[in-house]
Amino acid sequence: MSTTKAAVQQAELDELYSAFKAAHMAPLWTQREGLMPDTPRSDAVPTLWKWATLLPLAERSGALVPVGRGGERRAIALANPGLPGTAYATPTLWAAIQYLGPLEEAPSHRHTQTAFRFVIEGEGVWTNVEGDPVAMRRGDLLLTPGMHFHEHHNTGERAMAWIDGLDIPLVRQIDAGFFELGPDELATRDTPTTSRNERLWGHPGLTPVGAPTAKASPLLAYRWEHTDAALRAQLELEDEGYPGVLEAGHAVVRFTNPATARDALSTIRCEMHRLRPGASTATTRIAGSAVWQVFHGTATARIGDETYRLDRGDLFAVPSWAPVSLTSENGMDAFRFSDEPVFAALGLARTARAES
Amino acid sequence: MSTTKAAVQQAELDELYSAFKAAHMAPLWTQREGLMPDTPRSDAVPTLWKWATLLPLAERSGALVPVGRGGERRAIALANPGLPGTAYATPTLWAAIQYLGPLEEAPSHRHTQTAFRFVIEGEGVWTNVEGDPVAMRRGDLLLTPGMHFHEHHNTGERAMAWIDGLDIPLVRQIDAGFFELGPDELATRDTPTTSRNERLWGHPGLTPVGAPTAKASPLLAYRWEHTDAALRAQLELEDEGYPGVLEAGHAVVRFTNPATARDALSTIRCEMHRLRPGASTATTRIAGSAVWQVFHGTATARIGDETYRLDRGDLFAVPSWAPVSLTSENGMDAFRFSDEPVFAALGLARTARAES
Amino acid sequence: MSTTKAAVQQAELDELYSAFKAAHMAPLWTQREGLMPDTPRSDAVPTLWKWATLLPLAERSGALVPVGRGGERRAIALANPGLPGTAYATPTLWAAIQYLGPLEEAPSHRHTQTAFRFVIEGEGVWTNVEGDPVAMRRGDLLLTPGMHFHEHHNTGERAMAWIDGLDIPLVRQIDAGFFELGPDELATRDTPTTSRNERLWGHPGLTPVGAPTAKASPLLAYRWEHTDAALRAQLELEDEGYPGVLEAGHAVVRFTNPATARDALSTIRCEMHRLRPGASTATTRIAGSAVWQVFHGTATARIGDETYRLDRGDLFAVPSWAPVSLTSENGMDAFRFSDEPVFAALGLARTARAES
Amino acid sequence: MSTTKAAVQQAELDELYSAFKAAHMAPLWTQREGLMPDTPRSDAVPTLWKWATLLPLAERSGALVPVGRGGERRAIALANPGLPGTAYATPTLWAAIQYLGPLEEAPSHRHTQTAFRFVIEGEGVWTNVEGDPVAMRRGDLLLTPGMHFHEHHNTGERAMAWIDGLDIPLVRQIDAGFFELGPDELATRDTPTTSRNERLWGHPGLTPVGAPTAKASPLLAYRWEHTDAALRAQLELEDEGYPGVLEAGHAVVRFTNPATARDALSTIRCEMHRLRPGASTATTRIAGSAVWQVFHGTATARIGDETYRLDRGDLFAVPSWAPVSLTSENGMDAFRFSDEPVFAALGLARTARAES
Repeated sequence: MSTTKAAVQQAELDELYSAFKAAHMAPLWTQREGLMPDTPRSDAVPTLWKWATLLPLAERSGALVPVGRGGERRAIALANPGLPGTAYATPTLWAAIQYLGPLEEAPSHRHTQTAFRFVIEGEGVWTNVEGDPVAMRRGDLLLTPGMHFHEHHNTGERAMAWIDGLDIPLVRQIDAGFFELGPDELATRDTPTTSRNERLWGHPGLTPVGAPTAKASPLLAYRWEHTDAALRAQLELEDEGYPGVLEAGHAVVRFTNPATARDALSTIRCEMHRLRPGASTATTRIAGSAVWQVFHGTATARIGDETYRLDRGDLFAVPSWAPVSLTSENGMDAFRFSDEPVFAALGLARTARAES
Repeated sequence: MSTTKAAVQQAELDELYSAFKAAHMAPLWTQREGLMPDTPRSDAVPTLWKWATLLPLAERSGALVPVGRGGERRAIALANPGLPGTAYATPTLWAAIQYLGPLEEAPSHRHTQTAFRFVIEGEGVWTNVEGDPVAMRRGDLLLTPGMHFHEHHNTGERAMAWIDGLDIPLVRQIDAGFFELGPDELATRDTPTTSRNERLWGHPGLTPVGAPTAKASPLLAYRWEHTDAALRAQLELEDEGYPGVLEAGHAVVRFTNPATARDALSTIRCEMHRLRPGASTATTRIAGSAVWQVFHGTATARIGDETYRLDRGDLFAVPSWAPVSLTSENGMDAFRFSDEPVFAALGLARTARAES
Repeated sequence: MSTTKAAVQQAELDELYSAFKAAHMAPLWTQREGLMPDTPRSDAVPTLWKWATLLPLAERSGALVPVGRGGERRAIALANPGLPGTAYATPTLWAAIQYLGPLEEAPSHRHTQTAFRFVIEGEGVWTNVEGDPVAMRRGDLLLTPGMHFHEHHNTGERAMAWIDGLDIPLVRQIDAGFFELGPDELATRDTPTTSRNERLWGHPGLTPVGAPTAKASPLLAYRWEHTDAALRAQLELEDEGYPGVLEAGHAVVRFTNPATARDALSTIRCEMHRLRPGASTATTRIAGSAVWQVFHGTATARIGDETYRLDRGDLFAVPSWAPVSLTSENGMDAFRFSDEPVFAALGLARTARAES
Repeated sequence: MSTTKAAVQQAELDELYSAFKAAHMAPLWTQREGLMPDTPRSDAVPTLWKWATLLPLAERSGALVPVGRGGERRAIALANPGLPGTAYATPTLWAAIQYLGPLEEAPSHRHTQTAFRFVIEGEGVWTNVEGDPVAMRRGDLLLTPGMHFHEHHNTGERAMAWIDGLDIPLVRQIDAGFFELGPDELATRDTPTTSRNERLWGHPGLTPVGAPTAKASPLLAYRWEHTDAALRAQLELEDEGYPGVLEAGHAVVRFTNPATARDALSTIRCEMHRLRPGASTATTRIAGSAVWQVFHGTATARIGDETYRLDRGDLFAVPSWAPVSLTSENGMDAFRFSDEPVFAALGLARTARAES
């Protein structure tokens, strides 16, 4: 093609593209590979947050920032460096450390966003969910399904920090969020050891026939005692030669809604993993993103090209389809949450496990 | 009409009806009301079986009748007098007292029919279900879903009797039954306190991710300890002013499959009921039949026109749509099983509760 | 054993069995094989009813027996000779020829029992279902789901006969039936070509967003025009080398509820089968019973040990698990209904197909 | 507070926030209202695209830009001005005009993203979906479910333009996308009037029993003839006084998967709306975003604070929760697609309809 002809063509193309822009149009052919990559190519990056860094900063904010109406919670989010300008751990998941000083209260509200708390250490805080006071203790998973009023109050002399997980990024992205303030006064100051939802629903395989119908999981507290026993049993069964573990030396329980047997939360999967000393997981890719927190022990994680040394409390984010493997010399328990229920509900779930 | 004309017509009708019979035909109009009554009009009748009668006869059969291949089980069925020629408690349900002497064994088989055992007293027998030894103790419900190989063995010096429930009449009626013998030798003589299925699945709200997928309930044992705690909690919540009981003074738990949250068995609903001392139930009619057994305490039952004084171990059958009410002066626990899952699955469920 | 000892033992056993009987008890061990056979062993037997026999008897009853309140319908059931004393085609299914003379009306009622009409020949009758007049024409399947008021009226000068199918035996056996009379006057005398339910729901893949929610299939008429086109397309696709037929030369469509995509009726499966000239089906056993009616053409059926020559209109019953094969020299269309949805809903479905 | 003290506190806060940033953390309390608004507050804005603008630009790109490997499709997306830097119509939906010149071919690929084509005018293009050639004609909706290979080819002498809808933004945001190229050669050059999927599945209420099981809708073409008939019937029923329309003068059909009766696509709802001359819709807010295209007639749309005059072919985007009302003086047909299945699957669906 002559230079002149090429120049004419380019001028025509430039004119076309300008006309597109003026008409709020954009061609697919110039951006197809970015929009539709061969496999998920997340902007989010594997990221490690050390508990030894997070906790002092949370404590410091406890001294400097009040908790109450407006900000609503003293929660500091894990902000994935691959998603600048956001406070998102992954494109769909919010993870934060929340901190409540002695005798402090975080006021009542409710929202479309689904939430949970996971307690790495401490006790003394009760979260009142729809007026039902739920004690928070080390190892417990506590649910706040969407549109349940909730408030937290620290009844003790010691501050307490824990992890919040929510689907804030997803709900924000698809514009699904509704939010309402509750009363300024606490619904209750009761501090029972066991919440009412547990008393009704926390019995294995037993459904209370007269209980009110719930739109989300009627069980809101999953106690460490049960989680620990379930993981221990899987490894003992492995020792005895019976099935139960996910792979050699790797026990997993999923937290589920006892009224449906499906994931405890509609948009977030919650699991506890236990690695036996010396165990390694197969390298696995999952469509969907996840955040892990080490609950006990130590391990080494390999996520894509990154290798992390993990200690108690450390959190790390796994972008969609990133290859993940874990190895633990002395054993590890880790809590994991992900957006897999979203992928499953939309027919987008996919997993690839490397042969060992 | 003249007598002659009427006689002619009758003769023609007689001829028609004879022709029907010869052609394997039958008119609807002569039998419509019997076939399609305004409300269910069961051939089965309310019936009471006293434990004080059943148990000695079961013991006597233990002395006279061997257990083993062919008869397969030393089980004596409750035969509803309204269903003569059958050994059915109701048109869909089989209920029997099974008796196993010291060190006796009932050999392995499997069948389409769904079964459970409920233990009113005693211990020392293990039922091996697909090779998993399940201890049987007072208050426990033990499942044998359809097509699971099972065998029982008494490990102790004392005989043991319990209740079997099955859907034999339903499966026989619709011609759905398949039956296979298993090996003559016991799969295992292990006698663990806790079965493997409980160790994997017996933790509230916790799903073992690596466990094999089961076609029926993966949890096969529902222990009295949990059932009792769940019922107690409902009544305590009632005392505290919170919902949970089915009606005043009446707590109910349903035994459910933790992998689906639906009825523990596909064709049989199993529940435990507790009446507080002084409590009465509303008079209720349910489409579907049921069998109850008193586990603890005493009560008075009114079923249709019958009134029964109930003591521990007594069983009674409730035909479909019969009005039932229970009253207990000193409190009562009772196990109930019914065919309601069949009605629900076929869109035939219906309940009427009298206003109190 | 000495004769004396044996005699003593027999006497003790006799005494035990007498005691059982007095206590309304029955041992399992004497009847286990009858109750729980290795494979379904139906009392029902394969049976053929010739249309050439049925229709004249139905016409004769039209002359002798009035239609109206009480008997409600001039329907004559096919009575399986293996189920003496009943008017059941199989243990779960009712099949009858219904006959309505010129200008006759069958009055309104509704019942738990699920029903359909299939039209082998004729026209001129409208069945009003919940007030919606549905024309009945050759080849059409018309539904009357449970608890829908319905009435039939013949608008023409010619009598009309068709086939009714219901789950009367199943509902009677499990005591699930409720029945109510409707008004004595017809809800409507309108005779539209197309019923309102078809106008809303009879468009492929199109759901009317504003239509009232129905508890059963909202589509009540499946017209021969569509059924025929669907079967023809399957065989043409087979000719072109594409999938679609069930097996070589054998096309099948199932009538389904467009609001759920499940069986059109909750307890009865309805299908139309077409055999290409020269085609044979594999010998198949299905857990569950069925009734077939030849709609067009001729065939030979082998059911268990019976062989039937089939002409247009002929009906035959297939007991559970009986092996069935069909061969047609000149091609055949046949309507089939069965209790398979019951088996599927209860986890009891099973099929065995002989290798060809 | 003294100035000095306040300055010290601010310095401490600044230091804290710097430390957060360095640690990849971000406080919730400074951004809570933006992240969790009281009701959805979309970045997307109501936007109108005039067909009279779109089509000439598409034609112009037909002259200047080749179609083929790499860019894959000559599609120009509608880019919401509230989402700068993207080519998204809404945060979850992609809408584009695709243009294929005479005898041109767009090569085979498949991807996780779910797609459809809707044809506002023209014919002559076949889209081959998994090798099944599907004609595209005015008024037709053609599906390409996720991971189905597809290619387009124009068999005629005239160019053709149509609308593509996909879930590209959603899949990109949550990192769920996989993409594969197919063969460079067309799978088939056949141009049948009716595709094979229609021949198997396009019969109302009829399920082909032998057809292969599909993971998505087995019906891929919804023809205007049926859509038009269904809408017409709803308005005729309204004239006759019967239910069927969504509201006065407003008929709606939803395109559904005949194998599940659910939305035709797992992430996108597709509907056709018809407004009778003189009709108006109630003002409605829906959680979730939508894109509309006028198929026939004219109307006025009010979306939030914007008012649009709509002519044939015009498209407009509706952000989540924006109030929408339509009025048509002379009648209008409009195609609408939305992300409502995503909201429904995740428990996030919500609608508010103003009382008229």
